Amino acid sequence: MSTQEIANAFTILCKNGQFEEAGHRFWSDAVVSLEPLQGDMAEARGRAAVQAKGVWWYANHEVHGVRVEGPYVHGNQFVVRFSMDVTPKGQPRVSMDEVGVYTVQDGRIVEERFFYGS
Amino acid sequence: MSTQEIANAFTILCKNGQFEEAGHRFWSDAVVSLEPLQGDMAEARGRAAVQAKGVWWYANHEVHGVRVEGPYVHGNQFVVRFSMDVTPKGQPRVSMDEVGVYTVQDGRIVEERFFYGS
Repeated sequence: MSTQEIANAFTILCKNGQFEEAGHRFWSDAVVSLEPLQGDMAEARGRAAVQAKGVWWYANHEVHGVRVEGPYVHGNQFVVRFSMDVTPKGQPRVSMDEVGVYTVQDGRIVEERFFYGS
Repeated sequence: MSTQEIANAFTILCKNGQFEEAGHRFWSDAVVSLEPLQGDMAEARGRAAVQAKGVWWYANHEVHGVRVEGPYVHGNQFVVRFSMDVTPKGQPRVSMDEVGVYTVQDGRIVEERFFYGS
């Protein structure tokens, strides 16, 4: 699959709310997930760690709605925008606006790098 | 200035329609501009070449409106989304949806990489 095809398939799954399936299907075993944060949440290395991060996130956020836009493609990378309406556990309901920049190698996502709007 | 501050200032200029001013103010002399295209338009290297690309673009597109969203920041990079309503010279009016991923070093933009929506 080309990067465009992977980007399309990945984004369609996200638009259908199948975020975990999108990861299961396209993450490399060596995928690295990067957040613009300090400490333990900044980086998850390897499929197991990235899956665990997803499990943690869903356990700690009530999701009211997600709008997914994209993909935008350049070479072996693509971008997806996520606008989320969520309630983090024990905190007020908030709007989160972020983009993910995904890097593809050999038909798999080897890096996902999240950028936060402010 | 931090990447967040540069991203904010750059994006505000874009939101005000001051795209050339945004470049003049923040491009490194060695800036590289990358488009997901084949041939001469794929890469412009250096401030003079990137400025010339902008001059060419404005001469060949009638801009009816631009919506600018962002910035989204991670480390020394930021992302801006551009939704444009334009008429390329001699072609039908179209909607263009793209994002730019900007890389900052020493307070200047050293790379702008554009991703196209489809």
